[in-house]
Amino acid sequence: MANITKKVSWSSRADESGAAGEGTPLLNGSEQPRLFRQSLDYDNIENQLFLEEERRLSHMGFRCLEISRWVVCGLIGFLTGLIACFIDIVVEKLAGIKYQVVKENIEKFTEVGGLSISLILWALLNCAFVMVGAIIVAFFEPIAAGSGIPQIKCYLNGIKIPRVVRLKTLVVKVCGVICSVVGGLAVGKEGPMIHSGAVVAAGVSQGRSTSLKRDFKVSVLFNHYAFMPATARAGGTMFLGGVLFSLEEGASFWNQMLTWRIFFASMISTFTLNFFLSIYNNKLGQLSSPGLINFGRFEGDTVAYNLYEIPLFIAMGAVGGLLGALFNVLNYWLTIFRIRYVHRPCLQVMEALLVAAVTATVSFTMIYFSNDCQPLDPDHTEEYPLQLFCADGEYNSMATAFFNTPERSVRSLFHNQPGSYNPLTLGLFTLTYFFLACWTYGLAVSAGVFIPSLLIGAAWGRLCGILLTWADPGKYALMGAAAQLGGIVRMTLSLTVIMVEATGNVTYGLPIMLVLMTAKIVGDYFVEGLYDIHIKLQSVPFLHWEAPATSHWLTAREVMSSPVTCLNRVEKVGTIVDTLSNTSTNHNGFPVVAIFVLFSIQPAKLCGLILRSQLIVLLKHKVFVELARSRLTQRKLQLKDFRDAYPRFPPIQSIHVSQDERECMMDLTEFMNPTPYTVPQETSLPRVFKLFRALGLRHLVVVDDENKVIGLVTRKDLARYHLGKHGLEELQLAQT
Amino acid sequence: MANITKKVSWSSRADESGAAGEGTPLLNGSEQPRLFRQSLDYDNIENQLFLEEERRLSHMGFRCLEISRWVVCGLIGFLTGLIACFIDIVVEKLAGIKYQVVKENIEKFTEVGGLSISLILWALLNCAFVMVGAIIVAFFEPIAAGSGIPQIKCYLNGIKIPRVVRLKTLVVKVCGVICSVVGGLAVGKEGPMIHSGAVVAAGVSQGRSTSLKRDFKVSVLFNHYAFMPATARAGGTMFLGGVLFSLEEGASFWNQMLTWRIFFASMISTFTLNFFLSIYNNKLGQLSSPGLINFGRFEGDTVAYNLYEIPLFIAMGAVGGLLGALFNVLNYWLTIFRIRYVHRPCLQVMEALLVAAVTATVSFTMIYFSNDCQPLDPDHTEEYPLQLFCADGEYNSMATAFFNTPERSVRSLFHNQPGSYNPLTLGLFTLTYFFLACWTYGLAVSAGVFIPSLLIGAAWGRLCGILLTWADPGKYALMGAAAQLGGIVRMTLSLTVIMVEATGNVTYGLPIMLVLMTAKIVGDYFVEGLYDIHIKLQSVPFLHWEAPATSHWLTAREVMSSPVTCLNRVEKVGTIVDTLSNTSTNHNGFPVVAIFVLFSIQPAKLCGLILRSQLIVLLKHKVFVELARSRLTQRKLQLKDFRDAYPRFPPIQSIHVSQDERECMMDLTEFMNPTPYTVPQETSLPRVFKLFRALGLRHLVVVDDENKVIGLVTRKDLARYHLGKHGLEELQLAQT
Repeated sequence: MANITKKVSWSSRADESGAAGEGTPLLNGSEQPRLFRQSLDYDNIENQLFLEEERRLSHMGFRCLEISRWVVCGLIGFLTGLIACFIDIVVEKLAGIKYQVVKENIEKFTEVGGLSISLILWALLNCAFVMVGAIIVAFFEPIAAGSGIPQIKCYLNGIKIPRVVRLKTLVVKVCGVICSVVGGLAVGKEGPMIHSGAVVAAGVSQGRSTSLKRDFKVSVLFNHYAFMPATARAGGTMFLGGVLFSLEEGASFWNQMLTWRIFFASMISTFTLNFFLSIYNNKLGQLSSPGLINFGRFEGDTVAYNLYEIPLFIAMGAVGGLLGALFNVLNYWLTIFRIRYVHRPCLQVMEALLVAAVTATVSFTMIYFSNDCQPLDPDHTEEYPLQLFCADGEYNSMATAFFNTPERSVRSLFHNQPGSYNPLTLGLFTLTYFFLACWTYGLAVSAGVFIPSLLIGAAWGRLCGILLTWADPGKYALMGAAAQLGGIVRMTLSLTVIMVEATGNVTYGLPIMLVLMTAKIVGDYFVEGLYDIHIKLQSVPFLHWEAPATSHWLTAREVMSSPVTCLNRVEKVGTIVDTLSNTSTNHNGFPVVAIFVLFSIQPAKLCGLILRSQLIVLLKHKVFVELARSRLTQRKLQLKDFRDAYPRFPPIQSIHVSQDERECMMDLTEFMNPTPYTVPQETSLPRVFKLFRALGLRHLVVVDDENKVIGLVTRKDLARYHLGKHGLEELQLAQT
Repeated sequence: MANITKKVSWSSRADESGAAGEGTPLLNGSEQPRLFRQSLDYDNIENQLFLEEERRLSHMGFRCLEISRWVVCGLIGFLTGLIACFIDIVVEKLAGIKYQVVKENIEKFTEVGGLSISLILWALLNCAFVMVGAIIVAFFEPIAAGSGIPQIKCYLNGIKIPRVVRLKTLVVKVCGVICSVVGGLAVGKEGPMIHSGAVVAAGVSQGRSTSLKRDFKVSVLFNHYAFMPATARAGGTMFLGGVLFSLEEGASFWNQMLTWRIFFASMISTFTLNFFLSIYNNKLGQLSSPGLINFGRFEGDTVAYNLYEIPLFIAMGAVGGLLGALFNVLNYWLTIFRIRYVHRPCLQVMEALLVAAVTATVSFTMIYFSNDCQPLDPDHTEEYPLQLFCADGEYNSMATAFFNTPERSVRSLFHNQPGSYNPLTLGLFTLTYFFLACWTYGLAVSAGVFIPSLLIGAAWGRLCGILLTWADPGKYALMGAAAQLGGIVRMTLSLTVIMVEATGNVTYGLPIMLVLMTAKIVGDYFVEGLYDIHIKLQSVPFLHWEAPATSHWLTAREVMSSPVTCLNRVEKVGTIVDTLSNTSTNHNGFPVVAIFVLFSIQPAKLCGLILRSQLIVLLKHKVFVELARSRLTQRKLQLKDFRDAYPRFPPIQSIHVSQDERECMMDLTEFMNPTPYTVPQETSLPRVFKLFRALGLRHLVVVDDENKVIGLVTRKDLARYHLGKHGLEELQLAQT
């Protein structure tokens, strides 16, 4: 297993950079894998510049700063709400037009025969949309494929993934998700919404700092924490659930202030969404929708559930866990297949088209051969009831499941009258949709797995409800949906809240929670959650919550990388340029030591830590000691200069340093972080891990008992170890 | 302000120890303040013993350990659910009997005259209950007074408060809260429930480790994290809200595993509660109650609220913030008064009796003089409708507010038909109840402020709703309740969830959140939250979430305590005993150094850190080097020996060390933590703070650039600094 993962990860890497190279020819192909492995640094760089600037700031200044942070959060909330609203409305409109056209066509041909023309029309419409979606993703921004949640999880974990929070990604993601949902694929729009929220948050927080160019700490704050309010975007989708989701998935440590900001952004986002939806529905100012995912309210009876139902729910949770594990395993194999054989953009587009055509064909076939006719209520809630071969005043029940956007199908499964579905219909639907959804996730389209999971679960849940004759099938559909979703993505706390919010009924909180926990436990026995599988397939150095349980005997000495490339406090420019240009090591942080002879292995005493990005800015501004002496009016480098360069530092190759300048010296004292976190070499792995995780570190200097640098622990060194079936195992992560 | 706080804190300390000294004569009075200032150590002691024991544990062992932790969590959940259920049922029963008796009496005397007899009966009944409650609190366990939330907050923050998690405290708390609620005081039972949950959690997690004596890490786990699942008890009260509450108030850092455990305990607790309540209500197995605080379901209209109502809600939030600040300021002065003049147990009991009598009298007077008669619906929901001087078929509306348990009053205010209350009734009720609640909080009875706050807010909120003629008064009552509660306790995230859960309607999430945020912002402008005020009055070294904003220029050198009492790696027993017996310093952690001359100020190289508790165990078992040499079969000290001693280490005075033994040596190498966290002396305060807070440290060793010990930072050193009106201020915390 570990071997496979390793191999795949390698080819994955090569493919991705290859693909990106084709799509974006400006980027240097060889640069790609290197960028991919970078970490983010959430730790504050408290150098002298920072301290001076902080000292200049008055008490009032801090107040303003605080207010501006809230404003930024509000702005993030507003924009994400707007985008969510846009996606929602466009999808509704376009899907409505599509289904209307196909419905009319089907009705025309039902009597005269020749329904194959309707099928072709349907399949062509789907393929057209999916083609657009797949082309923009595959050719312009491959990172926008999929739900984006694994990428955001990695980003919040501190792994730098290139282009994941760019504006271009946002545009492609938004258009892509509209195309794939309207294109009738078995996808949801929630994951991509979360991703686009993260882009907005990153963009607003950085954009502000680079465009207004006067604000002091906003960018600092947001560079460090802030990709978390990011996920407040989830709040556009769901209100409280979004907040919890971002915490459960993202936050490294719980910070009350941060929580409030996320909460605030979430609130603004929900409000914006509500407001614009109310305008769209011509009910200006009547705000009532609790969020975007809304499965209609479960009108609770006085007795929501009975004691004897608890074991049934738990059993459903176990089934959900099993089915979820099956889904994940199938998708894992499929993804490996895709990484090996389907890596050219044109192949990816063709696969997407194939899936779109197959989805339409299968759906049509299922509807065509179904003879589950149900009477049409006068106050029916079906949007596009297809009569097909049913008697007048009846509709085809299979069509309510297939001939609809997935979200509406879920709602129908939850709320339609008992008896609206034939058990056979539900069984067949579950079976086909399960494989369709599994095939779809991982295509080169922008697509989430949230709603499809719910739909699969709701279908078999309702089936269970029907088989237990006495029960309300809608309630069992809800439990099935929770079980299936929990079995696939394996979140508990936030999912419970999301489900409760989506159904508007708190009473079901306890059974939903039970179902989710069971699904998680059963599923975890077989295989990891879907997002974790995809993260693992990218072989990024992802840090979990805790060090593996049996790793206390490992110490920093065994874990660390050594020898370390150190720099002197006053260093020759030539040495720095050479160190930075050395592509074989390509370190990102350099301990600064008192006296150190390069390439000697004699350890020297630690004075500080400096980052590659800081060195590049210093080189760019030519802050050399000799130059400073010659010109008296040398402009002093400000913290602003560093911040302006963020987040796109030029590569070292683009900085020209003349031969004369190579002989100059650079004084790093003022710019380095004088008090980096250190550990002695006997520190155990769990302690190092805890420090890393709790403080969001990127580099941890290992020192001996005389404070001399003997090693450096990075994220990669820690992510290697994991608990396998036979105790602690060491993964071979890519060594670049 | 700072000066006042300081003074008060001093007298507070003296008084508390005095009171405790009287109540519990076994405790040494002078011991008291010292114990009070201890910190908890959440950091793992990774000494050689620990590592050896961990190495012995197989992979299977870890599995079992993991399972046993879940079992412990389940047990905690079960017991807390049981206690919550017990409190709830007993309160309902007793209050029902009381109100029935008084009601019959009032009805008897309404016609014949002589209602003063009814008043006396009512007041006497109240006083009887309150007397019992006050006596057990004041004389037997003063720590059980109040809501217990400030104490639990401190405990989770890492401050050791003596007897806060003892069984005796639990018993007194449970009985006390029943007495005070039945006694008709303006109190709620939620805070005490949270406290009793914490006691259960602490008890179960420790009890297991000391009684079964084979389990390895349960106690380790629970000593470190575990007072957090503690507050999962809140989950007995509310399901998700409880989880969030424990995180918002308690957790130092967000840990996914921990969250799941809390969630699980919460679930079990809710389930237990539901199950037993269904038995009590003779509806075995029909589980539907989402939690204990249940204000009835708000049946959402299709339009929950309108855009123009948002400013109104915000205005209500501001009013709530103002009223909350007023409440807090009044209660602050009252508490200072109490600390100065009402510190004897008998005085405290008398004050409680006075409040009980006044509450009854005021309530009766208000009811008596009210002429707000409302027609009695055939399907009325009032439990004890008082006719008094109303016409037949009518009831006194003021009595629904006063003549009821506070929880039922809140429910009536939320859900009664528009027009059930006269505006004058509501205004008078708000006014009187506000002062009664303010006077009551801080009495020597076990009492929470949660429900009274909601009740005050619901009353003036409903008043607002009535004055805005077009509106649904119930909705405004809900917003008012949220505003008032937010203004007093200043929590946002968890309160929103709690309110949403209690009303069973997600739609109101956004406006509730808005109201809570406004209330918090407005309230924070004037004064801190009620719990924080009470924490400050105890002058405990409470660490907030972040270091004060303007403190980057402070370094570890200025913050640390120095010189530090260090111990040698191999130290003379006499020296250790003397160091531990030195009551003037009374340190709890000692850096272990290579070579060190006691009372010299020459720094020495750090090798480890050892705790007072460890040293005491070593002394108790006489683990001396000379003894070990003389006896060959010296039993090796196990980790178990340390764990068995937890959490009640004997004081140093109780350990007898003979004069011969004083000359022996002790080798600390095996027992000390060989890799304590250290910082260089130039580290800024925020960095130190972050390390402390994120890792739950108790001691942080400050070293120079040669790894020599030059100082020690403790919680007290950090808690001194806070951001006042004029920038950074240094508090003089008690120096013991």
